[in-house]
Amino acid sequence: MALKQALAFLLLFLAACTLLYSAIASDPDILVDFIPPPEGTPVDGSYFAFSGLRSAVGAPPPANFTVTKASMGNFPALNGQSVSMAVLSYPQGGVNPLHTHPRAAELLLLVQGFLEVGVVDTANNLYTRSLQRGDAFVFPKGLVHFQYNCGSGPAVAVAVSAFGSANAGTVSVPLSTFGVDIDDSILAASFKTDVATIQKLKAGLRG
Amino acid sequence: MALKQALAFLLLFLAACTLLYSAIASDPDILVDFIPPPEGTPVDGSYFAFSGLRSAVGAPPPANFTVTKASMGNFPALNGQSVSMAVLSYPQGGVNPLHTHPRAAELLLLVQGFLEVGVVDTANNLYTRSLQRGDAFVFPKGLVHFQYNCGSGPAVAVAVSAFGSANAGTVSVPLSTFGVDIDDSILAASFKTDVATIQKLKAGLRG
Amino acid sequence: MALKQALAFLLLFLAACTLLYSAIASDPDILVDFIPPPEGTPVDGSYFAFSGLRSAVGAPPPANFTVTKASMGNFPALNGQSVSMAVLSYPQGGVNPLHTHPRAAELLLLVQGFLEVGVVDTANNLYTRSLQRGDAFVFPKGLVHFQYNCGSGPAVAVAVSAFGSANAGTVSVPLSTFGVDIDDSILAASFKTDVATIQKLKAGLRG
Amino acid sequence: MALKQALAFLLLFLAACTLLYSAIASDPDILVDFIPPPEGTPVDGSYFAFSGLRSAVGAPPPANFTVTKASMGNFPALNGQSVSMAVLSYPQGGVNPLHTHPRAAELLLLVQGFLEVGVVDTANNLYTRSLQRGDAFVFPKGLVHFQYNCGSGPAVAVAVSAFGSANAGTVSVPLSTFGVDIDDSILAASFKTDVATIQKLKAGLRG
Amino acid sequence: MALKQALAFLLLFLAACTLLYSAIASDPDILVDFIPPPEGTPVDGSYFAFSGLRSAVGAPPPANFTVTKASMGNFPALNGQSVSMAVLSYPQGGVNPLHTHPRAAELLLLVQGFLEVGVVDTANNLYTRSLQRGDAFVFPKGLVHFQYNCGSGPAVAVAVSAFGSANAGTVSVPLSTFGVDIDDSILAASFKTDVATIQKLKAGLRG
Amino acid sequence: MALKQALAFLLLFLAACTLLYSAIASDPDILVDFIPPPEGTPVDGSYFAFSGLRSAVGAPPPANFTVTKASMGNFPALNGQSVSMAVLSYPQGGVNPLHTHPRAAELLLLVQGFLEVGVVDTANNLYTRSLQRGDAFVFPKGLVHFQYNCGSGPAVAVAVSAFGSANAGTVSVPLSTFGVDIDDSILAASFKTDVATIQKLKAGLRG
Repeated sequence: MALKQALAFLLLFLAACTLLYSAIASDPDILVDFIPPPEGTPVDGSYFAFSGLRSAVGAPPPANFTVTKASMGNFPALNGQSVSMAVLSYPQGGVNPLHTHPRAAELLLLVQGFLEVGVVDTANNLYTRSLQRGDAFVFPKGLVHFQYNCGSGPAVAVAVSAFGSANAGTVSVPLSTFGVDIDDSILAASFKTDVATIQKLKAGLRG
Repeated sequence: MALKQALAFLLLFLAACTLLYSAIASDPDILVDFIPPPEGTPVDGSYFAFSGLRSAVGAPPPANFTVTKASMGNFPALNGQSVSMAVLSYPQGGVNPLHTHPRAAELLLLVQGFLEVGVVDTANNLYTRSLQRGDAFVFPKGLVHFQYNCGSGPAVAVAVSAFGSANAGTVSVPLSTFGVDIDDSILAASFKTDVATIQKLKAGLRG
Repeated sequence: MALKQALAFLLLFLAACTLLYSAIASDPDILVDFIPPPEGTPVDGSYFAFSGLRSAVGAPPPANFTVTKASMGNFPALNGQSVSMAVLSYPQGGVNPLHTHPRAAELLLLVQGFLEVGVVDTANNLYTRSLQRGDAFVFPKGLVHFQYNCGSGPAVAVAVSAFGSANAGTVSVPLSTFGVDIDDSILAASFKTDVATIQKLKAGLRG
Repeated sequence: MALKQALAFLLLFLAACTLLYSAIASDPDILVDFIPPPEGTPVDGSYFAFSGLRSAVGAPPPANFTVTKASMGNFPALNGQSVSMAVLSYPQGGVNPLHTHPRAAELLLLVQGFLEVGVVDTANNLYTRSLQRGDAFVFPKGLVHFQYNCGSGPAVAVAVSAFGSANAGTVSVPLSTFGVDIDDSILAASFKTDVATIQKLKAGLRG
Repeated sequence: MALKQALAFLLLFLAACTLLYSAIASDPDILVDFIPPPEGTPVDGSYFAFSGLRSAVGAPPPANFTVTKASMGNFPALNGQSVSMAVLSYPQGGVNPLHTHPRAAELLLLVQGFLEVGVVDTANNLYTRSLQRGDAFVFPKGLVHFQYNCGSGPAVAVAVSAFGSANAGTVSVPLSTFGVDIDDSILAASFKTDVATIQKLKAGLRG
Repeated sequence: MALKQALAFLLLFLAACTLLYSAIASDPDILVDFIPPPEGTPVDGSYFAFSGLRSAVGAPPPANFTVTKASMGNFPALNGQSVSMAVLSYPQGGVNPLHTHPRAAELLLLVQGFLEVGVVDTANNLYTRSLQRGDAFVFPKGLVHFQYNCGSGPAVAVAVSAFGSANAGTVSVPLSTFGVDIDDSILAASFKTDVATIQKLKAGLRG
C-alpha cells in the first residue's frame, strides 16, 4: 500500500474516531434500547457488565483518598443511559478536595465509617453534615463540595456515589486554579491576595 | 371563622397541594441550585441528608428480597437533581421479580455475595450475567430485568443501585399483569394460554 | 485490491455504519431543520413522504391483530422530529397484547369500530375504557397497556396511534417474560407459581 | 367577610390559577406516571379518554377546511406526555393556510382523498408532494407548511396528524403578518411591496 | 490508486461528512466539556475564539439592514453549548423583516440608537415596544417578530442578540411564502386575496 | 381579622411564593409561547422589555470590574426562554475572578477595548486568548474561567455575554472556597498548603 493511501486511511480513521467522540457526546434520551459497541462486535451480557470496581469494593484502607469510577469512559454501555457510579475510600484524615461536577448531581451513600461533607450554593451558603454508616447526601449539580474523614479511630470510610449522567466530569477547584498556568496577577486579583501567596499555593500543588 | 371561609381555605389548600405536585413533576435541569422545601422552612445541611437507608446498610439477611429506596418521594432534595438510589438485599434464593423502570436506567453495584442478573431488549434478546462482589451491571431504561441470588451458601447478596432520575418508578411485570383486574380473556389471548392458567396465576399473586 | 485492504475497507465501513447508528440515537431537539439521508442523495419532497401505511389504511379486516408502523426505522426523515405513528387493525376478538413503549406515550384515535382499552400505572391501578368511533385515549409513557376488540358484531376496529418519539419501541410483556430463556425458577418465583405453569406458558408462546 | 379579605382571597386565587398555568408549562419528561387533574378529583379511565374528536371522525364534508385538535388545552391528561393529535378535513379546493408549529413536528396521515402538501426549510427550499390515501408526510418542527385538496372530484380529504408535543401551537403566517396591526410601512419593507398592497391584504384577512 | 478505490474512498468520505452532520445535529447537553474539531487538530485557545463579528462591531452604518452571526455553522466550538449570537445594524429606515427562529428565543440588547420591535404570539396578539440605548427585549421561541429603525435622525441602530441554541435558524416570512414556488392559488387562498396580488408580491421579492 | 386567620393567610402566601419558585424551576422548552406574570396583570409589550442594562451600556469606566445581568431573577419574561445576558465592564487592570456557570455556557463578545480570557477544562488544560474589539469567545458550560483587562492604556473594556439559560448561575471560586466557613484543615488538605495560608486567604476575601 502506497504512502498516500496509508495516510488517507489514517486520516479517515482519525475522522471516524472523532466522529464517534462527537456522536456519543450527548446525555439525553436515546432512540434505541442501548448504544452498541462501535466495533460491531456482537452484544452479549458481558457488554452490560463492568468489573472495574472490584478492586475498590472491600479493599484494604488506602494510604490516601481514592476514587474509582464506572462511567462512560471505561464502561461504554453507560453511554445514553444517563447514570454512572463511583466508589470512594477515605483513610482517616482523608479529604476529597473541593470540586464540582459540571454535568450531574451526586448522591453519596456512606457504606462504612464516618464522613464530614459540605456543599456551597451559588449564593455562597455553606451546608455541612456529619454522616454515619447508611446515610446519604445529595450534592446538587455544579456546586462546590467536599468530603472529609475526620474519624477519631483508624477506620476507613467508604462511600458509593451515584450520578445522573454517564459522564459527570470533575472540576478540581485546587487544580483548575493553582494547578494550571493562570497568570499570578490574575489569581492574586481573583483571590484578593499577593503574588507570593499565589506562588506558594502553585508550588504546593505541583510539588 | 365561618364554614364558607373554612371551605374556601380547604379548597385553596388542596389546590396548592396539587399545584405543588404538578410543579415538581419534571426531571429536567432546574433553573436554581436546588428546589427548596415547600414549607418555607430554612434550608440547612439536614435538607440534603437522608437517613432512610441506614436500616438497609449492614442489616442482617432479610427473610425475603427487600428494596429500600432514596428517591424524590421520601427524599425531597432529590427533586430536580435527576438521581436516586436503592439498596437491595437478596437472601439465598431471593428474586427481584421481572420489572421495568419507566423513567431511568439502573446501574447496579454488587457489594456483597453473588447475583444472577438478566435484561431483555425490545427485540426480545435476553442478556444474562453472573456477578461477583464489586461487579456492576447496567439495565437500560425501560427494559424488563431481574436479579436472583442463587448462591449455594447461605450468604445474603447486597447491591446498591443508581438511577438517572429522581423518581425512576417501577412497573412490576407480575403485578401489572396478573395482579390487577384485567379481563381473563384479554390475558389469555395476550399470553396465548387458557383462562384457567390465567386464573391460577392471578390467585397465586393475590394469595 | 489486496485482501488486507479489502478487510480494512470493510471494517471501516462497518464502523461507519455503527457510527451512523450511534449518531442518530437521540430523540431531543436537533440543531438543523431535518437530518438528511446519510447517502448524500439530494433531498426532495419524497424524503418527507412515506407510503408504508397505504396497505393498512382501508384494508380489509385482517385475520389477526396487526400493527403497521411509520417510525425512524422505516421512515428515516422522522429522525430528530420526535414523532411517529402506527395504524392498528383488530378483527373481532383481536387483542393487542400487554406491552409498554419505553420511549413515548401513545395517543390512540379509534377511527372505526369499538375497542376496550386499559393501562396500569406504577401503583398497580388499572384504568379501562370502552371506546367508540372518534374516541381518543392516552397511554402514559412506559406503562403496561392493551387494547381488545370485543365487538359483538363482525366489524373490524381500526385505530391510528401517535407517539412522541421517532422510535417509541415496544416491550411485549408476554414475549419478554415467557418468550425468552429466563430460568424457570426465576420466573416461577417472580410470578409466585410453579415451574410447570411457567413451562406451559413458555410452550404456548413458542408454539 | 369584609371587602379586604375578599380581595385577598381573590388575589390569592388568581395567583394560584397563574401558578397552575406556569406549573404545567413544560413539555419534558415528567417524574410521575401522569399529571393528575388539579381539582383533586379521583382519576379513573375517563381521565385518559377524550371524545372531542368524535364530531370530526366520519363527519360529512365541511364547507371549509376544518381542524379539530386533541391537545393539552382540551385534553389535560396529555400534559407531560409529549404527544397530541388533530383531525383535518379539506373539502374540494380547501386549503390549510401557511403556518408553523413552534413546539413540534407534524406527522400527517391521509386517511381519505387526495392532498397536495408542501414545506419550506430555513434555506428557502420548497418541498412538495402529492399524497394519496394511506400516505404520510412529516413537516419538520418550526417550518412553514401547508396542505391543499386540489381533488378534481367532489371528495373531501381527511387526515390525522400526530405532534410530538402536548401543545404544538400554531403560528398562522397570514394572521400573524397581515391580521395584526403591524405598521404598514414595516410590512411593506418586509415584503418589498407598497403600502397599498399591504392594506389590501390586511382588508382581505379582516373582511 | 485505481478508479474503483478512489470512488470507494470518495463514497466513504461523503458518508463520513454526512455522519458528522448527523452527529452534531443535537442541541442538548453534551457528555464532554466541549466537542473537539473533527479534523483531529490539537485544541488551543483559538478554537474557542471567533473573529467573524469584528467587521460588524463598530462598523460604519450599512446601506441596508445587516445581520452578522456567530453560530455553529461558522463557529464550530458552539456545537453542544446551546448558545449563539448576532450583531444587527439598522440604518435609518432599516427593517429586519418578519421572521421566526425555530430553535431558540432571541434576547436583543440595543447598544446604539433607537428601535421599534414587535412580536406576535400564537393567539395573534401583537406586542410592540420602542427601545432606546441599553434596552433589552425578548422574542419568545418560534414566534413571528421584527425590528425597525424609524429614527428621525441619520443614526444607525446597533443591537447584539443572544440565542439559546447554537443554531437558532431563521424562517423568513416573506421568503418562505412569496419567495418560493408555492402555487399561486394556494397562496391566494391562504392570504384571502387574488392571484394577481400574489404574483405582484412574488415579483417584488424576486426582483 | 383574627390572628389565626392572618397567620393562615401568611402561611398560604408563603406556600404560594414557594410554589411559584418551584414552578419556574425548569429551563427546558415550555408548552406555551411564554410564561405570563404570576400577578395576573395583562401582558403588553413592556413585559418583554427590560431597561435594567441601560446603566451599563455606554456608562463611564467603573472603578472596579462590574457585571450587570438580565436574567430570570430581574427579567421574568426570560423564564422558559433558555437565554439571558450580561454586560461586563473592566477598568484597566480589572479582573472577573475565576468562576463557573453551573447552568450554561457563556458566549462573550468584546465590544470595546482589549481583554485576556482563559478557561480550564476538566482535564486541567488551560486555554487562553487575547481578544480585541469585535472578538467573541465561548466558555463551555460548568468550566472555570476568567477575564482580565491588562490594557496598557487607560481604556475600559466592555463585553456583552450571552448564556443559554435564563438563570446560568455563578459559582465564584474564591468566595465558595475561602469566603465560606469551610474548616481550615479541609481547605489546607484540599490545596496542599498550611492552615496559616488558608487563614490569610480567608482574611483577604472577607476584609
